[in-house]
Amino acid sequence: MNAEIISVGTELLMGQIVNSDAAFIAKELTGLGIDAYFQTVVGDNANKLKEVIKIAESRSNLLIFTGGLGPTQDDITKQTVAEYLGERLVIQEEGLEHIRQWFSKSGRIMTKNNERQALIFENGVVFKNINGQALGTFIEKNGKGYLLLPGPPKELETMFVHFVRPFLSANYEHKQIILSKTLRFFGIGESTLTTLLEDLIENQTNPTIAPYAGKYEVTLRVTANAASQGECEALVRAKTDEILALAGEYYYGEGSENSLVQVVGDLLLTKKVSISAAESLTGGLFQAELVKVPGISEVFAGGIVSYQEDIKRRVLGVPDEVLKGFGMVSPECAKAMADHARSVFETDLAISFTGAAGPDPLENHPAGTVWIGLSRKGEETIAKEFHFSRNRLGNREQAVMQGFDMTRRALLSEG
Amino acid sequence: MNAEIISVGTELLMGQIVNSDAAFIAKELTGLGIDAYFQTVVGDNANKLKEVIKIAESRSNLLIFTGGLGPTQDDITKQTVAEYLGERLVIQEEGLEHIRQWFSKSGRIMTKNNERQALIFENGVVFKNINGQALGTFIEKNGKGYLLLPGPPKELETMFVHFVRPFLSANYEHKQIILSKTLRFFGIGESTLTTLLEDLIENQTNPTIAPYAGKYEVTLRVTANAASQGECEALVRAKTDEILALAGEYYYGEGSENSLVQVVGDLLLTKKVSISAAESLTGGLFQAELVKVPGISEVFAGGIVSYQEDIKRRVLGVPDEVLKGFGMVSPECAKAMADHARSVFETDLAISFTGAAGPDPLENHPAGTVWIGLSRKGEETIAKEFHFSRNRLGNREQAVMQGFDMTRRALLSEG
Repeated sequence: MNAEIISVGTELLMGQIVNSDAAFIAKELTGLGIDAYFQTVVGDNANKLKEVIKIAESRSNLLIFTGGLGPTQDDITKQTVAEYLGERLVIQEEGLEHIRQWFSKSGRIMTKNNERQALIFENGVVFKNINGQALGTFIEKNGKGYLLLPGPPKELETMFVHFVRPFLSANYEHKQIILSKTLRFFGIGESTLTTLLEDLIENQTNPTIAPYAGKYEVTLRVTANAASQGECEALVRAKTDEILALAGEYYYGEGSENSLVQVVGDLLLTKKVSISAAESLTGGLFQAELVKVPGISEVFAGGIVSYQEDIKRRVLGVPDEVLKGFGMVSPECAKAMADHARSVFETDLAISFTGAAGPDPLENHPAGTVWIGLSRKGEETIAKEFHFSRNRLGNREQAVMQGFDMTRRALLSEG
Repeated sequence: MNAEIISVGTELLMGQIVNSDAAFIAKELTGLGIDAYFQTVVGDNANKLKEVIKIAESRSNLLIFTGGLGPTQDDITKQTVAEYLGERLVIQEEGLEHIRQWFSKSGRIMTKNNERQALIFENGVVFKNINGQALGTFIEKNGKGYLLLPGPPKELETMFVHFVRPFLSANYEHKQIILSKTLRFFGIGESTLTTLLEDLIENQTNPTIAPYAGKYEVTLRVTANAASQGECEALVRAKTDEILALAGEYYYGEGSENSLVQVVGDLLLTKKVSISAAESLTGGLFQAELVKVPGISEVFAGGIVSYQEDIKRRVLGVPDEVLKGFGMVSPECAKAMADHARSVFETDLAISFTGAAGPDPLENHPAGTVWIGLSRKGEETIAKEFHFSRNRLGNREQAVMQGFDMTRRALLSEG
């Protein structure tokens, strides 16, 4: 059993919108254990769409179309597929009534062409559209399935979750259950991680291990299939243990929706450690990231962005002998910034960032040189040096992520 | 002349990432006047990729591949296309040196598999990767073009804009010259803007007008084609005048690489107006955006993130009677924050943000209620109320953008 996603819409070919529908359906199919090896995008053109159907039929059992179900002349998916298959379309009365009511409720005039949205395959299945007008529909012919879904993401996603997912689960049953877990790593590149795990990756069968390089991290998706949920879980757990035995040093958490920021926020909240920040080159980015964590106001007091040298002295209170004696790009400055932030904001912990974002050097330190300071009640203040080699924004983002990693390690170190 | 985009990556088939690369390239092709009728996604599988190449060759002249150029075993695009075409790949020395330097700068160990990223077609063209390691490459064979580009959006986009766009423009020539200009609007939605410009859009021929809804703004791409650059420019200029006569109130600048933040940064620098900020719900995001502008340290002093109420009082100096009398979500608090920031940081201008980011209400004000204050030397301090209806992050981002718009209008108002 394998499926293929066919997205219909000239706006996709012109690059006016991103094909988020395909990603959504692909993720759903993965969850359902239905393989999908191809995705195709084609414009609002009947002949080209027919070419695409022919190719897709030759390699897939289930063809999932999105888009082109609307009321305008451009919307040709239902008509084209029906014509291609030699199948009839009929108006579904309930769907038509729903469209009529929608227009009357919103005080708009319903033009004749809107009736097209209630068309379904005469010998097919209908899927209700809770968030819009165009009905979804499905037909099976010669052992192939043709599933037609609306293009607007809100309509598609609601229809899929409520009606299509149960339909596929019941009709396209798999003997095996599939389970995936995402493991997240920071401080290691994709190639180094995969080299470290080379044996595991080369000999992978079940579970499989798929590495993916995110913006500032690497994730591994461990996917097992087995006859039961329990077996899947055991397989994933065992493989995870093998992976962490080799690369646990860089592992910070699991889950496809997780992030380093979230993990740090959770640690701060759980351990009730209050935090503040003094940011120079990062310009407030550490704090702007931290406040993404819901409920963080319980532990995050605030901070200072000391972009100009004078602010470090005047507002933050970094002594002149540090600024003049060691310069702004120095461990002494980073430590003083963190210490003073912790004292001004009266927090348990404070982090600081100072350095040269680029493109120009600062005080003879090359662009990308960054010192991160960490001050903590009852402990010695530390500072760590980094050398980043991205552009101005990239160096800043990377500094912020390293700051989160330092905070995470500090929070874990106390046992 | 028509092109086809082939995206290679199992992570796309699994729905782990959205195919933003295809949208980016599609938009670029539209701008170049190159038609594209199909897009295909295929996994990291050599046989399936060859099937896709065969189909694409039968209907398109230029095959543009993205993804699969990295260092891991999964990355098979270059090898597969080369094998399919019977062409040799060679290591490009300059590219290899660039990779070596990247590893040595970032203090990481370069493993052998990273050398693969410097492979290009022996008889082909190379495209440098400014933001990464994997080189792009192009080869022409039997009248068809094969263009291989990296998958990570930052690498792809920079490579395309700097090297691929001029290459395609020179080598895939159109008889007509095509010229595009992007006009940028803030504070108006896409549907309202297109309704305002309905007559112009419905009767468009040459130039064409393509609206695009960005995250917090709308852009219009005005594209003319004519026999000469001068004719194109005149056509675009005349159409721009017509557009601005109807929607000039919301227009803030032009250029595909421009942004509201950049426009504000340029104004601050040109007018030598120094600025500071006091941020509550936005958590430092205004400042983190502002420091994206190169050279901004000349006018941007710094600011305070006063996330907890106590910080507004203690560090910023907002009087108790304001915090207690009017609350944190009030024009009085916004004005006091801006005034105190301007005084603490000794700047010409200061902006402040206070309100309820959500999801919960704050002091009985519903989520999304935000006051933005603006204090300026010699002028009356103002505060403006906004009601946003996005999620926590969306409300904050929108507040920041409105803050930039208020700053822009303030800077322009003095004539």
